[in-house]
Amino acid sequence: MKLKIVPVVTPFKEGKIDGEKFIHHCMSLLSVGVNYVFISGTTGLGPSLSINERMDLIKLSSNFADKAIMQVGSMNLEDSIKLARMAKENGIYGISALPPYYFGGIPEEWLIKYYVEISKIIPTFIYNYPKFTGYDINSSLAIKINKAGGNIIGVKDTIADISHMLSYRDLGNDFIILSGPSNSIYEALRSGVDGSVAAAGNFMPKTFIELADKFEAEASFKLQKYINSVLSIANEYGSWSAYYSLIKILRRYSAGDSRAPFYPLNALDEEKLRHDVFFVLPEEQRHQ
Amino acid sequence: MKLKIVPVVTPFKEGKIDGEKFIHHCMSLLSVGVNYVFISGTTGLGPSLSINERMDLIKLSSNFADKAIMQVGSMNLEDSIKLARMAKENGIYGISALPPYYFGGIPEEWLIKYYVEISKIIPTFIYNYPKFTGYDINSSLAIKINKAGGNIIGVKDTIADISHMLSYRDLGNDFIILSGPSNSIYEALRSGVDGSVAAAGNFMPKTFIELADKFEAEASFKLQKYINSVLSIANEYGSWSAYYSLIKILRRYSAGDSRAPFYPLNALDEEKLRHDVFFVLPEEQRHQ
Amino acid sequence: MKLKIVPVVTPFKEGKIDGEKFIHHCMSLLSVGVNYVFISGTTGLGPSLSINERMDLIKLSSNFADKAIMQVGSMNLEDSIKLARMAKENGIYGISALPPYYFGGIPEEWLIKYYVEISKIIPTFIYNYPKFTGYDINSSLAIKINKAGGNIIGVKDTIADISHMLSYRDLGNDFIILSGPSNSIYEALRSGVDGSVAAAGNFMPKTFIELADKFEAEASFKLQKYINSVLSIANEYGSWSAYYSLIKILRRYSAGDSRAPFYPLNALDEEKLRHDVFFVLPEEQRHQ
Amino acid sequence: MKLKIVPVVTPFKEGKIDGEKFIHHCMSLLSVGVNYVFISGTTGLGPSLSINERMDLIKLSSNFADKAIMQVGSMNLEDSIKLARMAKENGIYGISALPPYYFGGIPEEWLIKYYVEISKIIPTFIYNYPKFTGYDINSSLAIKINKAGGNIIGVKDTIADISHMLSYRDLGNDFIILSGPSNSIYEALRSGVDGSVAAAGNFMPKTFIELADKFEAEASFKLQKYINSVLSIANEYGSWSAYYSLIKILRRYSAGDSRAPFYPLNALDEEKLRHDVFFVLPEEQRHQ
Repeated sequence: MKLKIVPVVTPFKEGKIDGEKFIHHCMSLLSVGVNYVFISGTTGLGPSLSINERMDLIKLSSNFADKAIMQVGSMNLEDSIKLARMAKENGIYGISALPPYYFGGIPEEWLIKYYVEISKIIPTFIYNYPKFTGYDINSSLAIKINKAGGNIIGVKDTIADISHMLSYRDLGNDFIILSGPSNSIYEALRSGVDGSVAAAGNFMPKTFIELADKFEAEASFKLQKYINSVLSIANEYGSWSAYYSLIKILRRYSAGDSRAPFYPLNALDEEKLRHDVFFVLPEEQRHQ
Repeated sequence: MKLKIVPVVTPFKEGKIDGEKFIHHCMSLLSVGVNYVFISGTTGLGPSLSINERMDLIKLSSNFADKAIMQVGSMNLEDSIKLARMAKENGIYGISALPPYYFGGIPEEWLIKYYVEISKIIPTFIYNYPKFTGYDINSSLAIKINKAGGNIIGVKDTIADISHMLSYRDLGNDFIILSGPSNSIYEALRSGVDGSVAAAGNFMPKTFIELADKFEAEASFKLQKYINSVLSIANEYGSWSAYYSLIKILRRYSAGDSRAPFYPLNALDEEKLRHDVFFVLPEEQRHQ
Repeated sequence: MKLKIVPVVTPFKEGKIDGEKFIHHCMSLLSVGVNYVFISGTTGLGPSLSINERMDLIKLSSNFADKAIMQVGSMNLEDSIKLARMAKENGIYGISALPPYYFGGIPEEWLIKYYVEISKIIPTFIYNYPKFTGYDINSSLAIKINKAGGNIIGVKDTIADISHMLSYRDLGNDFIILSGPSNSIYEALRSGVDGSVAAAGNFMPKTFIELADKFEAEASFKLQKYINSVLSIANEYGSWSAYYSLIKILRRYSAGDSRAPFYPLNALDEEKLRHDVFFVLPEEQRHQ
Repeated sequence: MKLKIVPVVTPFKEGKIDGEKFIHHCMSLLSVGVNYVFISGTTGLGPSLSINERMDLIKLSSNFADKAIMQVGSMNLEDSIKLARMAKENGIYGISALPPYYFGGIPEEWLIKYYVEISKIIPTFIYNYPKFTGYDINSSLAIKINKAGGNIIGVKDTIADISHMLSYRDLGNDFIILSGPSNSIYEALRSGVDGSVAAAGNFMPKTFIELADKFEAEASFKLQKYINSVLSIANEYGSWSAYYSLIKILRRYSAGDSRAPFYPLNALDEEKLRHDVFFVLPEEQRHQ
């Protein structure tokens, strides 16, 4: 059985986190079969949240803490440690950490220390996203972290190269490999990763779950193609905001707005988006 | 006369900003001939600071506010606006703004809005650093921002390509073009930019100032080479932290420590760094 | 049944093609179960061969022409057309074409014309290798080529992203998708591509064939890992030349030498290579 | 006095080199003040020429051999050596060599050998163009080549980073540094390089020469901007072919056609190009 995880959007209302909508969105996803919600990830605009906001998200997750993975990476180690501790105290299932981003030229030694100090607190999934962070926390580095006293138990690998994902198998058969990109869930699962953390799960959870549960069936490739078509459309509108609109369109509830400079779609664009998406999705895919 | 600007490091003490050292460092640089200090930039580990910390830096600059440029860019527009307003109220000379970073795929339209809303408050320098942000806020985009109601008056262009810097001349002869990279101050000034924002000024301000004041002399190329040699050495130790040590070594005072995950050099490495740097610098360059 | 194709090395002897060794190498591979040999590809140092040399390779293939795919791409269309015609006249199964490389900034329109003119002569596989050519001849472009009168029947997609490979499925279920990278044969086949063109097949054909024939078995992942270990070692010696030595080591015959500036390994390095490879391969993998 | 060098286009007529037009074009450029013609470079579509064609170009240069630099780099060392010898025998002033291109992963050791063997024959300019070749033959590598017995006397550095160009000064004050990009001649010369190899010199030689001779005058920046505007327009039509049309338009003679897959502009596009170019160039720049 493959793990189905959704990196949830963070609902805002006039620039503040809308806690009620956050809880509703998470519970809704868990109720339809998602195994875990991944909080404060890229889709959740995590790197744009303040530490206080991220602490609030932990508190808001109390009712489904054992079904939550908290992303705690930041450019201030003390903050990341604070988040990790709080996640632990609140019974959060596990944490994940982006490496420090923006700043190029960070020596490997610092990256190792960073992950050791965080994962000592609570078992940690590396969150590898080289395209956005500039660093590849690959399997060799993961091994070095654990040798240095870290406690890395898995990875969310957001990279196009599936062979890169599989290379973490060097850390053991129990090491949990989660593929990041929503546009290759089918390929990654068939290749042997343990699960998928799919942004598309926010607005197409049923498709995601069916695809993940039946990844061995060739027919599932069609489900992947539906997802890819919608992702491609979202991209034209600015994915980071379009995801919120897609929840409204396909799930028929609101998960709030995005926050500037991730400007929410206006009513006209949202209507166009609905039209574009309904054009590529068959009837049965339009209500998730 | 070319502008000599230093993007100051942010001094920390046990993870908190050390205000006294910050003031001392800025005043020291201004007293030896630097025209402006650039606060909360990359060298200042700006993207790793909380908004409260950045507000503190504005307050700490009250004695030299008219000699300070505040970097206000962030991934939360409201925060950036708050910083811009506070900078204005405190008599800060001007602001600069990084575009939102980390998140790829932000539509041009959002970038324009972001810069319009910030620069409406107080005249703004674009802080262009494509290698770290993923976005090139080039001259065409700057023109669009101003056409859309923005008030962009200059740019800090951190890019290897000097012809890219000069292309901002399309915004007018009054548009202030500042080159970002410390390793090509000589080339950029000779090519016609209006000034330099040089990280190396933190620890080699005298070399920087002499180079900038005499950029027309061929002899100045030697000064540039001294700077480049030191930058190259710093890089081996992790530049973001090595800069703090270099201030101790070359300026003989402390500007505090860096903050994890930008781990400060230990005593041994600092001693090795001193040795390496003294090896490449002649006597008269060793006390800045 | 998946297609097993080997992009054969081109044997040289004192700087000239060694025809006898070329024939022997191709026949040997076909005899152990390889479906087609791919001639004048990257592994075959194709872009370094003169047109006359490439014509010689076509002639040398007469005994197994129906089992040969000829790579005809070049930066002189007339040459490519000449090769395509000759391939057709000699009963070669099909051709493949790299786009023009080296020169950036070629308009899409030229790329389309180029492929139309070549594929009109004989059905063509696009050879997509963006990392080396600078151009991504993706599925949208392939569709445009066929709409403009071309006859593209398949693709050799040498790219890490398997979802990119699968996107060519838009050209129809008969469109033949071949994955290029040797280090992800397992993943690509499980994801649904029609075959693999694997450089590793030159020196590990039995492993390649077993892997491809049993890709559905999880045990095959181990075979992929053997291949990856050897590729990784080869890379340290300069893959383009190390492949020749690996044929000697693992297949126990000579496929000639590489040609400068792809300098053959000296005896000492070859011995070290043998040692390294035998260290990672179990007994039963050491004789291919 | 700065060196003014033009990497000449190679004139074709129905797919064959048009020797007469080649001679005329070179002589014309030398007669208006260009110091050297650079043959078989990127603008000359060098990597697309056969070795025989390149030998022909050497022979065609007999009347101005001492004013010619021959680019001999290729992916077959023997060919490059043959060209280098022939260049020497024919009294060519000097040679330049691209590193092998297309193939990634070539060990540094091979690159050194390649340059040593070529430059032993006749003093050589490295032709560094990392964007197209994938290799940076930088100053450290150049030093290693000369230490290994090579005879590198200069470099044509086609890179946006002027500080990279200046770093070759480590090879001595006599080392000849030539900047490659046409869009930053002004900046490079002011920064201290010894000359420029400018593709734009094919069609705007007078502007190029005036700019290079008066680079110290600020007014020359305007000349650079004229060049940049035209380059930018050429790019929209496919620079490799548009250059031929620009010679017709601005120099009022024909330097032949480009060769497919570098498709010549049709009459309509050429007329549009003329219009676009005349729109940005003042009267006095329209006849070169």
